[in-house]
Amino acid sequence: MRPAILLMANDLFEGELENAINPALAVEVFHNFTLLHDDIMDHAPMRRGKPAVHEKWGVSEAILSGDVMMVQAVQLMTICPDRVLRNVLDVFSETAVEVCEGQQMDMDYELRDDVSIEEYLTMIELKTSVLLAGAMKIGALIGGASDEDAGQIYEFGRNLGVSFQIMDDILDVYGDQAKFGKQVGGDIIENKKTYLLLKAMELADPETKSSLEAAAVYTEERFDEKVKLVTDIYNRLEVKAKTEMVMNQFYDKAIQNLDAISLPEERKAPLYELAKGLLQRES
Amino acid sequence: MRPAILLMANDLFEGELENAINPALAVEVFHNFTLLHDDIMDHAPMRRGKPAVHEKWGVSEAILSGDVMMVQAVQLMTICPDRVLRNVLDVFSETAVEVCEGQQMDMDYELRDDVSIEEYLTMIELKTSVLLAGAMKIGALIGGASDEDAGQIYEFGRNLGVSFQIMDDILDVYGDQAKFGKQVGGDIIENKKTYLLLKAMELADPETKSSLEAAAVYTEERFDEKVKLVTDIYNRLEVKAKTEMVMNQFYDKAIQNLDAISLPEERKAPLYELAKGLLQRES
Repeated sequence: MRPAILLMANDLFEGELENAINPALAVEVFHNFTLLHDDIMDHAPMRRGKPAVHEKWGVSEAILSGDVMMVQAVQLMTICPDRVLRNVLDVFSETAVEVCEGQQMDMDYELRDDVSIEEYLTMIELKTSVLLAGAMKIGALIGGASDEDAGQIYEFGRNLGVSFQIMDDILDVYGDQAKFGKQVGGDIIENKKTYLLLKAMELADPETKSSLEAAAVYTEERFDEKVKLVTDIYNRLEVKAKTEMVMNQFYDKAIQNLDAISLPEERKAPLYELAKGLLQRES
Repeated sequence: MRPAILLMANDLFEGELENAINPALAVEVFHNFTLLHDDIMDHAPMRRGKPAVHEKWGVSEAILSGDVMMVQAVQLMTICPDRVLRNVLDVFSETAVEVCEGQQMDMDYELRDDVSIEEYLTMIELKTSVLLAGAMKIGALIGGASDEDAGQIYEFGRNLGVSFQIMDDILDVYGDQAKFGKQVGGDIIENKKTYLLLKAMELADPETKSSLEAAAVYTEERFDEKVKLVTDIYNRLEVKAKTEMVMNQFYDKAIQNLDAISLPEERKAPLYELAKGLLQRES
């Protein structure tokens, strides 16, 4: 998706495809570098249904391969027109630092019991949205966008990314198992601090809070019960509707950013479609 | 040393100091990023007499801090004149990939019994010399050197770096304990595959080879004996003189590269001094 949206943003401003193709690859290589290193830090044994690199080849090899991929991302990113080289690299490296900061926050928050909703939103913004936003801005700059339009498309990507991530949290609990692809309730089973859980903790009375805390330590044979118990609490506290409200706020901001780009509506149609598709998805 | 030689190379071509100061910092930040990640891979508990980052803050934190430092190195490297930006980044990223390759070789060679001298030279070239070479070339480019001169100074740095590294191997065994700073014989104790050891293994008859292999498994109470035994073998096989010969070959090539740079001798004097100093050092 990330290379595709970089190319879409380039195309939006009628940029040449060949000017943007290597930066699009750069974003994908960079993203995969973060996956390699994240999987080490998260002790994740699998990635895309196969053994993770650190499992298959060793931790040192995964660290070093990630390092080289990061450098290769820089190399690919520099294959763009001179007129935007510096600008593109600035956006890319700023984004890269933020993605790392987001990963650090994610790790810190796993160990904390008092993560606020505001902190959670900042974390998902840094960990996932800024890379979408950066990819769009880089594509737009290469395509010849003005600074003003490049700024709007960055904000479009950032707001859309956050609403996308919140939707992920909702689908994990309320998705249709047949269409979802992953186990519904997976986040609940793993005690993942999602928007839903943080909102529920915020709204819960002491008794409900105790139930949530008790459910968190259920062992495997009670996972079905755990999912049902937590989902019932979400339902009772109307967490889904409250989460959708926030998701829609980010979505609406994204649409306003897209509206503000100084191009005819019909040129922007593919991006409106992209945004609509992300919010109507079922998996 | 790395930032200093970048600035020296810039100064050689009468470049403005302020054009080169951030790239000089970039090289130092990059070097420290490699130390952070290398210490994880090598399970090194200490660095510069203090707990290594992965020991003090955790492996994940060391991976991620290294990643951010790598990106910050790119950011600092881009703070250079437009006319050389692309060139500087190309040299930097090529060098960065090679440094990672050198680290992988170093790790691979630790597990192998059949490392050739040629492989060893390639490894030290990639792991240490190319960064010196790259720093010099970047400084020269920023200073306004021609491609030809920038190529010569790169080779100067590369050859000087290799001879420097070989000298390290010699000093570890034949250095004056009072001046050396580290324990003389440290490489022997750690069974490090140095130029001296590889040369000795190449020259040794079967009996001597057996002695070297037996010494490799001596435990701590026999370390003094081990250092004496291996040093005696080196002496008998005249390994020191043979190693110095190769070191001098690289040094001579470095001087030829410096000779070939199209500048008056007096401008190059500080670099001749630098080279001479590296070979006359005692620690």
